[in-house]
Amino acid sequence: MKFYTEYLWFNTEKKREYINITSTLNSILKKSGIKEGMMLVSAMHITAGVWVNDAEDGLLQDIDEWLEKLAPYRDDYRHHWTGETNGDAHLKSLLVHHQVIIPITNGKLDFGPWQQVYYAEFDGKRKKGLS
Amino acid sequence: MKFYTEYLWFNTEKKREYINITSTLNSILKKSGIKEGMMLVSAMHITAGVWVNDAEDGLLQDIDEWLEKLAPYRDDYRHHWTGETNGDAHLKSLLVHHQVIIPITNGKLDFGPWQQVYYAEFDGKRKKGLS
Amino acid sequence: MKFYTEYLWFNTEKKREYINITSTLNSILKKSGIKEGMMLVSAMHITAGVWVNDAEDGLLQDIDEWLEKLAPYRDDYRHHWTGETNGDAHLKSLLVHHQVIIPITNGKLDFGPWQQVYYAEFDGKRKKGLS
Repeated sequence: MKFYTEYLWFNTEKKREYINITSTLNSILKKSGIKEGMMLVSAMHITAGVWVNDAEDGLLQDIDEWLEKLAPYRDDYRHHWTGETNGDAHLKSLLVHHQVIIPITNGKLDFGPWQQVYYAEFDGKRKKGLS
Repeated sequence: MKFYTEYLWFNTEKKREYINITSTLNSILKKSGIKEGMMLVSAMHITAGVWVNDAEDGLLQDIDEWLEKLAPYRDDYRHHWTGETNGDAHLKSLLVHHQVIIPITNGKLDFGPWQQVYYAEFDGKRKKGLS
Repeated sequence: MKFYTEYLWFNTEKKREYINITSTLNSILKKSGIKEGMMLVSAMHITAGVWVNDAEDGLLQDIDEWLEKLAPYRDDYRHHWTGETNGDAHLKSLLVHHQVIIPITNGKLDFGPWQQVYYAEFDGKRKKGLS
């Protein structure tokens, strides 16, 4: 059994940003030499998410708007008593989940026809990690 | 370490359909001969979900209604500019997540008392895969 | 390849309760002797969740309030025709997901700076299991 871990760092320019990391993950898989197994893609921050979905700009805007509707920015989250202003980012992270697992088959990430992996930053402009 | 992959295909009759795949997964586990480990059940489509919950018809209707409330069909999703009409199905998929992992202990799927695995189709009447 | 399974039991005092199980998981990892791999933390009940997020009391109250807004208690869930009263707990469980995977690196749970694991009970005052 072989394990390979790599950490990625993101420093987004916008507060909320959705980054397609599929080709990065393909490179990591190649480097690892793993042929069968699973790749865990897991955000290391509690205000970020990871999902598998379509790479389509309109859809990304729909998702962003939808997340803001279901888990809106609000001044009066209790969490803000700590001095933070990112209560909504925690809720958005819970909503989309912070990790996915990609099956590896014959040395390839075993995706369906349109599956792409996104790192979703909900509280950006800080340095953030992913393993 | 042993790996075993199987692909399932669904061709649903309705737009939204929830299929209990627990017994299918039990058969696959038997075929694989794996005694300890994990089974990843992951939708290969970006308009489908996989969840673990109760097998109760009323609850399935409640879930369907709830998903339609939180991620409703709308004409004006930006994603529809591509000619698609399934924006809501993408959002529903993000909401329930597209995969689960089932622990395997002593050659059995290690479920709690009421846990059943569902494949949730949110944009059906097309052929869809699951690995 | 080494596998180690442990079951935890919770008997909460309140209907909804959020229990930080991070230190318990650290003890289990130590006992297991596993140095590289993944730890699956998966609720065995269909009215419970498991998530990774911040250990901050205000935030936990925000999350609780938010979940009650998105998946409220209602008298008229169809699931209640079975005699149950926990329809909302099933929906809350779907919303936050019932499991997480924690990467294990160098014999440690490989968390980001603020990541803590919570067991979320949505239908408490019964004995519940986690594997």
